[in-house]
Amino acid sequence: MIKQPRLTLSEFFEKGDQFYIPQLSIDCVIFGFHEGELKVLLLQWKDSKKWCLPGGFVLKQEHIDDAAVRILQNRTGLNNIYLQQFYTFGDPERARKTHGARKPGDVTGKSWLTERFITVGYWALVEFSKVDPTPDDFSLDCKWWDINKVPSLILDHNAILDKALSSLRIHIYDYPVGKDLLPQKFTMPELQTLYETILGKDLDRRNFQKKMLSMGILERLKERKQGGAHKAPYLYRFDSKKYQLAMKQGLKFGI
Amino acid sequence: MIKQPRLTLSEFFEKGDQFYIPQLSIDCVIFGFHEGELKVLLLQWKDSKKWCLPGGFVLKQEHIDDAAVRILQNRTGLNNIYLQQFYTFGDPERARKTHGARKPGDVTGKSWLTERFITVGYWALVEFSKVDPTPDDFSLDCKWWDINKVPSLILDHNAILDKALSSLRIHIYDYPVGKDLLPQKFTMPELQTLYETILGKDLDRRNFQKKMLSMGILERLKERKQGGAHKAPYLYRFDSKKYQLAMKQGLKFGI
Repeated sequence: MIKQPRLTLSEFFEKGDQFYIPQLSIDCVIFGFHEGELKVLLLQWKDSKKWCLPGGFVLKQEHIDDAAVRILQNRTGLNNIYLQQFYTFGDPERARKTHGARKPGDVTGKSWLTERFITVGYWALVEFSKVDPTPDDFSLDCKWWDINKVPSLILDHNAILDKALSSLRIHIYDYPVGKDLLPQKFTMPELQTLYETILGKDLDRRNFQKKMLSMGILERLKERKQGGAHKAPYLYRFDSKKYQLAMKQGLKFGI
Repeated sequence: MIKQPRLTLSEFFEKGDQFYIPQLSIDCVIFGFHEGELKVLLLQWKDSKKWCLPGGFVLKQEHIDDAAVRILQNRTGLNNIYLQQFYTFGDPERARKTHGARKPGDVTGKSWLTERFITVGYWALVEFSKVDPTPDDFSLDCKWWDINKVPSLILDHNAILDKALSSLRIHIYDYPVGKDLLPQKFTMPELQTLYETILGKDLDRRNFQKKMLSMGILERLKERKQGGAHKAPYLYRFDSKKYQLAMKQGLKFGI
């Protein structure tokens, strides 16, 4: 990993562009799933109290994908997260003047941070009970928000979140989802709950099962889930090799 | 449209960054379809004779989507093309030193163009018999290349092309395709040829028909295609309203 300079907030406003690519930023939309709930991870700025997506800048010699991972870790404490690039936002009205971080009082003159920024969006989907969000020095708080109760965010971050959600929803038709979100052995209703939670709508049980089995990445086990009041449902697990292959090639639903 | 400065090549190397966003470019992958052939539009640099994707830079106050449209029109003459943003390439090894355009002899010192560039990729799919590619002043030639016979391109343009093709192939499972590529009334075999050409593989006739009809955007007409030796096949057309809706919401193949 490329070494990051240690700058005070004033130094960052004054000369950050000596270390970072100008007019380019990264924003991360981290979706959290847990038993029928979909949430998104937001940071709150210390001074303005405004909420935003965890974001940051790209070092001069850094790959943008590596920057996304570093930024997420620095700002929220989350590491080892697979980040999916989904869209780049390039409206000229995206300007720092509506940002949550105020220019420190001792910084005079124009700062590189008040320029227009193009931002590259990444999303990830994590089991939120398994991670421990921790705010960085700039932030008052770092917490999960219910996807339907997100507050007004800085800049165009609400629009970025909407686009990320659309991208995630399309993605689950194209690529397998669930490996790190479900127990190793799971029932078809558990898988359906995951899809329904991401899609935000109910799905037909029989169609869903047919579609899932046709993807060819599920393996039905001989053992059944015990303990319920109803007939014990079958347990499934993902076929690791086929899952990995589908991650690369897409599911394609067989036309 | 924002006014573009008129600069000589030397001026462009020396002070282009007064007008354009530094370290950010746009590259367009234009796929051409015509009766079972898939091609890609490439430009050839005048001085180095190297081939590349049509690309360019973003004006300080310009939306990146507008920049893509302007760049495509300036460099190839193609206009009114719907461009789809697909990926942003941010490897630090993407540097202008391996670019096709040489720095003019009268430009001394470092140029903004020799910095590392992050590039935003856009693709489009056009009926190539309907457009007339025209090279710009920097280019010797602008022509269609068979997708399987693309030469070695500058920088990482071959990798950008591959990624665009993957994106296009995933896209046709998620969104409707064909409106400007097929006659207004077409047969199922004509639609299948379009899909097979884009996917680069043969598809099963019955599965294909079933899948296409299940998307709910096709209307079967009463009239049949005349003139063939075989039984006259049904004609179809796209249901405009449903096609437009599916362009926005995705096809989702009904789970």
